[in-house]
Amino acid sequence: MEKAWEGRFREPTEEFVEEFTQSVSFDKRLALYDIQQSLAHVETLQKAGILSQQEAESIKGALLKVKEKITKGEFSFRRELEDVHMNIEKALIEELGPMGGKVHTGRSRNDQVVTDLRLYLKEEINHILDLLSGLRRRLVRLAEETLEVVAPSYTHLQRAQPIRLAHYFLAYREAFLEDTDRFVNAFRRVDALALGSGAVAGVDFPLDRFFTAQKLGFRSVLRNSMHATGDRGFLLDVLYSCAVCGMHLSRLSEDLILWSSEEFGFVELPDRLCTGSSIMPQKKNPDVLELIRGKAGRLYGNLLSLLTVLKGLPMAYNRDLQEDKEPLFDSLDTLKGCLKGASLVLEGLKVREDKLRAAAGGFTLATDLANYLVGKGVPFREAHRIVGSLVAKLVEEGRSLQDVTLEDLRTFSPLFQEDVLKLLDPLVVADRRQTYGGTSKERVKEQIELAKREEGL
Amino acid sequence: MEKAWEGRFREPTEEFVEEFTQSVSFDKRLALYDIQQSLAHVETLQKAGILSQQEAESIKGALLKVKEKITKGEFSFRRELEDVHMNIEKALIEELGPMGGKVHTGRSRNDQVVTDLRLYLKEEINHILDLLSGLRRRLVRLAEETLEVVAPSYTHLQRAQPIRLAHYFLAYREAFLEDTDRFVNAFRRVDALALGSGAVAGVDFPLDRFFTAQKLGFRSVLRNSMHATGDRGFLLDVLYSCAVCGMHLSRLSEDLILWSSEEFGFVELPDRLCTGSSIMPQKKNPDVLELIRGKAGRLYGNLLSLLTVLKGLPMAYNRDLQEDKEPLFDSLDTLKGCLKGASLVLEGLKVREDKLRAAAGGFTLATDLANYLVGKGVPFREAHRIVGSLVAKLVEEGRSLQDVTLEDLRTFSPLFQEDVLKLLDPLVVADRRQTYGGTSKERVKEQIELAKREEGL
Amino acid sequence: MEKAWEGRFREPTEEFVEEFTQSVSFDKRLALYDIQQSLAHVETLQKAGILSQQEAESIKGALLKVKEKITKGEFSFRRELEDVHMNIEKALIEELGPMGGKVHTGRSRNDQVVTDLRLYLKEEINHILDLLSGLRRRLVRLAEETLEVVAPSYTHLQRAQPIRLAHYFLAYREAFLEDTDRFVNAFRRVDALALGSGAVAGVDFPLDRFFTAQKLGFRSVLRNSMHATGDRGFLLDVLYSCAVCGMHLSRLSEDLILWSSEEFGFVELPDRLCTGSSIMPQKKNPDVLELIRGKAGRLYGNLLSLLTVLKGLPMAYNRDLQEDKEPLFDSLDTLKGCLKGASLVLEGLKVREDKLRAAAGGFTLATDLANYLVGKGVPFREAHRIVGSLVAKLVEEGRSLQDVTLEDLRTFSPLFQEDVLKLLDPLVVADRRQTYGGTSKERVKEQIELAKREEGL
Amino acid sequence: MEKAWEGRFREPTEEFVEEFTQSVSFDKRLALYDIQQSLAHVETLQKAGILSQQEAESIKGALLKVKEKITKGEFSFRRELEDVHMNIEKALIEELGPMGGKVHTGRSRNDQVVTDLRLYLKEEINHILDLLSGLRRRLVRLAEETLEVVAPSYTHLQRAQPIRLAHYFLAYREAFLEDTDRFVNAFRRVDALALGSGAVAGVDFPLDRFFTAQKLGFRSVLRNSMHATGDRGFLLDVLYSCAVCGMHLSRLSEDLILWSSEEFGFVELPDRLCTGSSIMPQKKNPDVLELIRGKAGRLYGNLLSLLTVLKGLPMAYNRDLQEDKEPLFDSLDTLKGCLKGASLVLEGLKVREDKLRAAAGGFTLATDLANYLVGKGVPFREAHRIVGSLVAKLVEEGRSLQDVTLEDLRTFSPLFQEDVLKLLDPLVVADRRQTYGGTSKERVKEQIELAKREEGL
Repeated sequence: MEKAWEGRFREPTEEFVEEFTQSVSFDKRLALYDIQQSLAHVETLQKAGILSQQEAESIKGALLKVKEKITKGEFSFRRELEDVHMNIEKALIEELGPMGGKVHTGRSRNDQVVTDLRLYLKEEINHILDLLSGLRRRLVRLAEETLEVVAPSYTHLQRAQPIRLAHYFLAYREAFLEDTDRFVNAFRRVDALALGSGAVAGVDFPLDRFFTAQKLGFRSVLRNSMHATGDRGFLLDVLYSCAVCGMHLSRLSEDLILWSSEEFGFVELPDRLCTGSSIMPQKKNPDVLELIRGKAGRLYGNLLSLLTVLKGLPMAYNRDLQEDKEPLFDSLDTLKGCLKGASLVLEGLKVREDKLRAAAGGFTLATDLANYLVGKGVPFREAHRIVGSLVAKLVEEGRSLQDVTLEDLRTFSPLFQEDVLKLLDPLVVADRRQTYGGTSKERVKEQIELAKREEGL
Repeated sequence: MEKAWEGRFREPTEEFVEEFTQSVSFDKRLALYDIQQSLAHVETLQKAGILSQQEAESIKGALLKVKEKITKGEFSFRRELEDVHMNIEKALIEELGPMGGKVHTGRSRNDQVVTDLRLYLKEEINHILDLLSGLRRRLVRLAEETLEVVAPSYTHLQRAQPIRLAHYFLAYREAFLEDTDRFVNAFRRVDALALGSGAVAGVDFPLDRFFTAQKLGFRSVLRNSMHATGDRGFLLDVLYSCAVCGMHLSRLSEDLILWSSEEFGFVELPDRLCTGSSIMPQKKNPDVLELIRGKAGRLYGNLLSLLTVLKGLPMAYNRDLQEDKEPLFDSLDTLKGCLKGASLVLEGLKVREDKLRAAAGGFTLATDLANYLVGKGVPFREAHRIVGSLVAKLVEEGRSLQDVTLEDLRTFSPLFQEDVLKLLDPLVVADRRQTYGGTSKERVKEQIELAKREEGL
Repeated sequence: MEKAWEGRFREPTEEFVEEFTQSVSFDKRLALYDIQQSLAHVETLQKAGILSQQEAESIKGALLKVKEKITKGEFSFRRELEDVHMNIEKALIEELGPMGGKVHTGRSRNDQVVTDLRLYLKEEINHILDLLSGLRRRLVRLAEETLEVVAPSYTHLQRAQPIRLAHYFLAYREAFLEDTDRFVNAFRRVDALALGSGAVAGVDFPLDRFFTAQKLGFRSVLRNSMHATGDRGFLLDVLYSCAVCGMHLSRLSEDLILWSSEEFGFVELPDRLCTGSSIMPQKKNPDVLELIRGKAGRLYGNLLSLLTVLKGLPMAYNRDLQEDKEPLFDSLDTLKGCLKGASLVLEGLKVREDKLRAAAGGFTLATDLANYLVGKGVPFREAHRIVGSLVAKLVEEGRSLQDVTLEDLRTFSPLFQEDVLKLLDPLVVADRRQTYGGTSKERVKEQIELAKREEGL
Repeated sequence: MEKAWEGRFREPTEEFVEEFTQSVSFDKRLALYDIQQSLAHVETLQKAGILSQQEAESIKGALLKVKEKITKGEFSFRRELEDVHMNIEKALIEELGPMGGKVHTGRSRNDQVVTDLRLYLKEEINHILDLLSGLRRRLVRLAEETLEVVAPSYTHLQRAQPIRLAHYFLAYREAFLEDTDRFVNAFRRVDALALGSGAVAGVDFPLDRFFTAQKLGFRSVLRNSMHATGDRGFLLDVLYSCAVCGMHLSRLSEDLILWSSEEFGFVELPDRLCTGSSIMPQKKNPDVLELIRGKAGRLYGNLLSLLTVLKGLPMAYNRDLQEDKEPLFDSLDTLKGCLKGASLVLEGLKVREDKLRAAAGGFTLATDLANYLVGKGVPFREAHRIVGSLVAKLVEEGRSLQDVTLEDLRTFSPLFQEDVLKLLDPLVVADRRQTYGGTSKERVKEQIELAKREEGL
């Protein structure tokens, strides 16, 4: 099979080498973006006087034919043609004769592939931004629905202080809002034109790159041809954003897996979102959540993979960079699946208010007893010690704070008065956390309102 | 040794546990930031009426005393006091009696440590931004100095096309400019107040967090207490920015290590920046560059370390998060060293113009011969094949493109005319890459001018 | 400050370069191993006739003096002397005059540092093997103590089938036994002599490396000088073994953190192994376990750090390799701490049999009801469906399998007979898992006996 | 579509969940191993009296039919059946009616999938061991062919000392020998039977697991059912072995990429193993080597991926573990390709002896001049200084060691005599490195002979 570069070569490529070095088996995913850029490139060539109007029209026509074939699944990609670019160019030459080869004038695969990737990424990131928006909105809705649900918060996986459950959901919304911001930054970096950089040093035809950028909808034009073809920082930003978002999803999943255990029992997942066991008839497993948690692994792995490829690589393009695509595609596909899965779970989630309320009381109220004493003038450290001793005694007696009487309390400090007893209601206690960003009703409502405005709800 | 939380405990902490869980051996680095935040916290407590003016003044006075001791190296941190926060608080109590404990009112170590980290990071990132700016400026200066130096560019580590060396330096400036942007984004994320979030659910004292933020110079206030205390995305952004910048530095180092080899010989490093061998008297090794290249390893490792810690961690604070500090400190220290080292090397670098010029000619001129034929109407693919065959023949004859005659050329295509011979000068060829971002003199000058304006040079 | 290699240099090393390239701040940890190898090297030099007996005695005497100083903490390492090797050699020269320099004959820092590392690692790995042995023994003891304790096993964090708790502890023993095997393999790789490889190509003095190996207790002699000085696979094996062991410890920790939550309540940790909260008086947190879980992060990070350093590094020694030490030291220190911590926790662990028994019953018994039907000739898949329907009905009615009557069962299949009721006891059901490696009493006892023999208990 | 576990479920699985949780799209690769284990399992069931001979025969017959269909590519895997196991079981039921379901008696997908993986891995590792053996043999052959070729060795990518090129190839053989050992260890771990462990706790049918192990060719039987189903250490060992081997391959590739650059010119690759540029007609790129170097990235990434999945996962099986397969398959495929590629390159490699010889002389001879002085009684450090000064002077004069005269030498030390001049031949100098493992002819020949015996050449 003839190659685009066969002139200088005296023997045909070894079959293994063709197979080992080909990328079309995975970069064919970029085919439509490759055509999109070729259409713009043809116009740029025409503008520069390199193609006549007639040539340009012919090539554009042929490109659209190829596009249609690809869309219909009728285009057959051939591995011996190496990559998506050569496959499409070959089809043009088959259609138009030598004139088809003119589309490659003033372009190298080195700038071409980066341009494809950037076009692809703009669409993919937008898709992810939509999914993130859906997830955040779902969290806000859940917060609205659970404003009156009291729940324990945890630190060290030990019950800490009572919260309004809404507060918990809003915490994850903050995390996903920051993830959104990471993707927005990545998008800004991606949104720049590489085409016109040639193989490494620029192009020796008078191509108007700003014209091309405008045709392709790029916000800016990369300013250095070596950087444009040899750098992959823009891909790292995407892989990193995926990894951090996957990390947040793994934490949310861990929580919900715990909460749907028999021991916690705080939430239930609908049957349609669970799977069973081939051997244990009673099992109803939170597989979607487990997979989301596990898929953080591949998101991390893909990031490391490209970081490793790039480490110590000399300027500019090296074939090692071909290894950028598979981790990228995998991370984007993975994250999209995880975001959909998480949204689905949050939509189907049934909250068990009784269980949450029961768990929200008891020793989680201890901080407020200490703060009560602070209100009576006891230094915080001393108040902490007093209540700590009380807790230790109750634990030994097998009792909890909810059973405590004023007399019990007064044996530890005479400063406890009747009014302390209202602190034994977890919702009352939750409402005492009134600093901005705290879990009191007023504060949580304030945040819900703000979130709704931000989300356009 | 008494603990801040001993009330609830019936036996003293095992010595191993004290040692294993302590963090003061490394978080003492945050001491001055801890005092800074305590000073602001005391004012917030006073504003809220929790501390009298007199109490506030006393505590602030004691804090300043501790600060002085620390600055002078006279403060002895004790491991049995766990962390920097408890060490400082203990010192206050020793100074002021129980009143010293009041500084912990309305604050938990969970929001405290995040606040310390954010204060620390703002300073560190600013330092890194300065170093990056210095490195970029050095690259711009180098570009100015090497505008007239012709050099080979490489792809696949094979000579590709001639460039002006300035173009190469500007390519790295672009990379470091993007790294700068990553740190600026990280800074924006870091620049928010966590204090007032308490242990997890907020604080039940009427603290004005916006007042605190203003005192501490934070741009915004974190909106959810669980997120503020349990999330570490802001640290990941810093670790990631360090890793990518380290990757770029490893590539620059690789290039310069290659270039300072006997085989390339493109640059020389001054003796003062090299070290020798204890056994081989002739050796002059580019150790600084090798170490910079190698240190990408720890920058990657630190990022993956924290990503791993966070994977699947339940909301909110867990002690696992204590593992965030050492990789963070190490990455920042490492990157600062690498940036300094790289700047120093670029300042001392001696460029060997003769060697570069010799390497810039020859077969690197082939593309332009092909494009010459395109200019005569030959489709690019056909022109490429013709010149490829010419190259293959010359290689077999042990000749290069610089020795070629018009007759040689015309045996491959009659379209070659006298004017083709001027294409055998690498500088002429470099200047043909005239697209925006290309390596022609005009284009490179344009970018240098732009860069100087951007860098304030 | 004079350098060992200053002859070829025309200007002194820049201060920053000294600081950036020095390694003595961390490789001084190898000092005693460096002296150990020097003592053997001197004897080898003497055997080769390079040192007279008198010279050898003098140098050995001086080495022992340095050793004593180091042991007593009286040796001051100087950064401008670069590394531990030059610091010690300098001390010899100060003691003996130029004759001190003879110890470096036939040796380069390139083979010297590898030899130090291998000596160090043999001791460290042995230490870790001891700690692993202690941990495994503790698990075997726990298994003995909990043979009669019934507990739920989990898959997907949902209760699966009843087990004897001993079975669970034995599962972790298997994991740590495999980790032990990993370290044993790593030890075998480490246990080979590098000295005598010189800087890269071997040594041109007739040194008897087998003699040196025997003196230093190395099992074998590395067979290629470039491999010996330039490869770091033996370090990766150690870092990897640490990472996997840390992974297993993170899983054990996760389990015990869950089990010591209020919701599970399966185990209790003694106060002496927990720490409290500076703000919530009731808190008793499993910090040791959380830190062990978190420290998996740095163990992973260190492995990836060295893998990154080595990627794409040209043969043989490069200064990048200096970056091998800090991750290595950190991983070994970290793992030793984690192993100690885990052993301590397992020693202090109080198992709550009542809670475990309660959780072990109920729907975990469903598999055996299905298998009961299989025993009556029902194909497994059909039996599974029948019991699945029964479970679904009971869940809807808010009942569990422990409340079920024979009549209930018979409405789902007439094949259920009186004898099925004994399957409603979790311990009976656990004992039905009689395949080798299963959880029946007989099988578990068999494994405990085997384990005791293997552990020498 | 009915599921194996539908009895307990009240609503069908959501389509997204089916898609998200399915694994058949990738675990179908295990199909033939699944059938292999089912054949053995059926015999075990028969031996235990659970299947009659007739049933066993029928099921085995049906399994063989399915196998044939799969082999011929006529079996259509259905995603709604989740995984390879259920697809095959479903086919049995379609063939045999309910009796087909009996094959699942005494087996869970949890022990089934581990058994499939172990069968698969034994074959794959053996394949890799073959490829490694081929690569090592090729290196030994190259060493034989290049025994008389002198070359420079490098440290810090600066020329260090002359070697026989054979020595270099033997160094890589050592590395790949150690990699081989890593895979052998991984194989030992893999070679154990998991079947009979059930879902988590063992099986309640009297299955003879040792019989099954013997049928399937496993060396041992896993001793704990929870460990057998919940641990993935054996996969990490494989992923790690791939990563280290990939690291070594990346170093070899880096060397050969450097060596095939115009600047080094030490080797040439045949046209059939290179590819060209679509734009630069002169280019002949070492793409195979670049890709091998780059693919270290995915090998590292896959290892990290599974390490991350396993971090902090509770005992025993969790659905996260489904994420073990894709990185595993990818690493094995990748490494096989890289090993094949590296062998092919080493077979086609043309060594340029003239270039190597030219580079091997000059300053690389300095160490031996110093050692010459040592032989005259000068302490090594002083000799080093003298030769260092000589080198510095020659560099300033633009000369090298090959041009030096006895007079030149004697101005630096009167101890230099006529006999020193023979040290100016790199081959002579190489032969002076006579310690075991050094680069002298005798030593290298000794290692070649040893290697040939070990490799059966």
